[in-house]
Amino acid sequence: VASELILTVTANLALDITYEVGRLVPGATHRVRRVHQRAGGKGVNVARVLRALGAAPVLAGLAGGSTGAAIRADLALAGLVDALTPIAGESRRTVTVVSDVDGEATMCTEPGPLVSATEWADFVASYTELVGAASVVVLSGSLPPGVPETGYRELIDIARRRGVRSLLDASGPALTSALAAGPDIVKPNAAELRAATGIDDELVAAQELRRSGVGAVVASLGPDGLLAITEEGCWRARPPKPLAGNPTGAGDACVAMLAIGAANGASWPNTLVKAVAVSAAAVVCPVAGEIDPGSYQHLLAEVVLEELDAAHPHR
Amino acid sequence: VASELILTVTANLALDITYEVGRLVPGATHRVRRVHQRAGGKGVNVARVLRALGAAPVLAGLAGGSTGAAIRADLALAGLVDALTPIAGESRRTVTVVSDVDGEATMCTEPGPLVSATEWADFVASYTELVGAASVVVLSGSLPPGVPETGYRELIDIARRRGVRSLLDASGPALTSALAAGPDIVKPNAAELRAATGIDDELVAAQELRRSGVGAVVASLGPDGLLAITEEGCWRARPPKPLAGNPTGAGDACVAMLAIGAANGASWPNTLVKAVAVSAAAVVCPVAGEIDPGSYQHLLAEVVLEELDAAHPHR
Repeated sequence: VASELILTVTANLALDITYEVGRLVPGATHRVRRVHQRAGGKGVNVARVLRALGAAPVLAGLAGGSTGAAIRADLALAGLVDALTPIAGESRRTVTVVSDVDGEATMCTEPGPLVSATEWADFVASYTELVGAASVVVLSGSLPPGVPETGYRELIDIARRRGVRSLLDASGPALTSALAAGPDIVKPNAAELRAATGIDDELVAAQELRRSGVGAVVASLGPDGLLAITEEGCWRARPPKPLAGNPTGAGDACVAMLAIGAANGASWPNTLVKAVAVSAAAVVCPVAGEIDPGSYQHLLAEVVLEELDAAHPHR
Repeated sequence: VASELILTVTANLALDITYEVGRLVPGATHRVRRVHQRAGGKGVNVARVLRALGAAPVLAGLAGGSTGAAIRADLALAGLVDALTPIAGESRRTVTVVSDVDGEATMCTEPGPLVSATEWADFVASYTELVGAASVVVLSGSLPPGVPETGYRELIDIARRRGVRSLLDASGPALTSALAAGPDIVKPNAAELRAATGIDDELVAAQELRRSGVGAVVASLGPDGLLAITEEGCWRARPPKPLAGNPTGAGDACVAMLAIGAANGASWPNTLVKAVAVSAAAVVCPVAGEIDPGSYQHLLAEVVLEELDAAHPHR
């Protein structure tokens, strides 16, 4: 799809561990039947989808300790190009305990390593070099402890000064403090949109968010698809029907397609339809970062795209 | 206490991870407040207590992958001498989620790596060399997948041929299949004693177990202390009163003291009193492998030792 290099930044990489048990009983001891383990973090899932779509992602971020080594080994296994900056701390893990009986998933997420000022400076230097070769930079997920809250603002500034487009998928202060740098695209979900603007109406909130200096706001609204406020116009794009499955990773798949669209200079209507189809193709897969190619092709023809009147979008 | 080298064998080492959360709710996502992590497995706890008591343990066992690297790093941090055999598989983890609210602990234990026949042979070769320098060998805990069920029998045979005493703390087939090799000491708990003999009465069961070729049986009966059937006589040794705290690791502390007694050629009454005191000093510590030196010294004078009439022990 895209031959140009897309740089994905995952500041807080994780080793995602899944345990299959009979049923989780608080206070009891459980023999784990099967262990699954893979590199995770939103940016890693984005890179996996980019690769599945034929794009050439390079992964930047911070990783350290024996967990960092396990993350890097898994990235190599997945054929992903790792340009991670080493840190002294231990990368975080997430542990999800899934019941064999009914699929109930219970998750524990570690806070992530403390990153020193020197390590962050090393990362920024490495990022600055990598950005020069990229057409789009994707910034995803939380910032680990020790990284300044304004971390994404700094990274977006560097990209803009080099003429490289930026796509931000973050929440809380990491998102709001980055708006001043003028990211080209931000992709909040409904809750992040509400938290960032204090506005309940999604369209009004997205318009407000765009006015804070963002090129385009693409809000992911779960089964309601995408709402896009862009310089070209405003659209809603919806899947033909709600899909059952695993919503984890649907947002990351959407981000991957938005990045490909930005890298290729595709039109917004074209990109939005593909982004909805690829999100839906991620929902039907049990593991974040995977998409079902058959579903993707099938859904492309079925996504419902509606242009909104930007001035009077509710009419 | 002991200047002679004690070799502890932990075939299935673990990285013990503890997560502090508010309260574990099945089906929910939990941000972990604090992460604790240390090398574990029963033999590692034995080695920690040996070191705390001034003995010189050397750790043998099998470890691999990034989890094996984390285990070795933690052993080095604890000042423990690691003579582990590397394996291709990933060492296992245990994850315990502890509630900040009421201390409720929920545990998941991974099954352990698959050990190949070549790796087991490598381990046996390394063990055979190490045994030559040791005065006592301590064999603790489960055997990982791939290791023959008769693994402990083989290791005890090797020790006996070299005139090195052996102490076995295992359960199930790993215990019962090892009895034929004639370990010098076995330390079952009440449940293991019952499972190995099919006899409910602890004294009768311990006598029966000893008749299967064991030098001495020391059964750990939790708050009731120890029951010892030895070539010198039979004893019960009890703590002065039940102690509140963490029973995990009390058995490993007991094993450490039994090993020191064997290494020093101490009398059974002397060793049993010290073993009960050190077990109780482990119960008052929150973490397995630690003992409270003050409690140990204090309890030494308070342990109740009772000699049993071996022929008519119930009279």
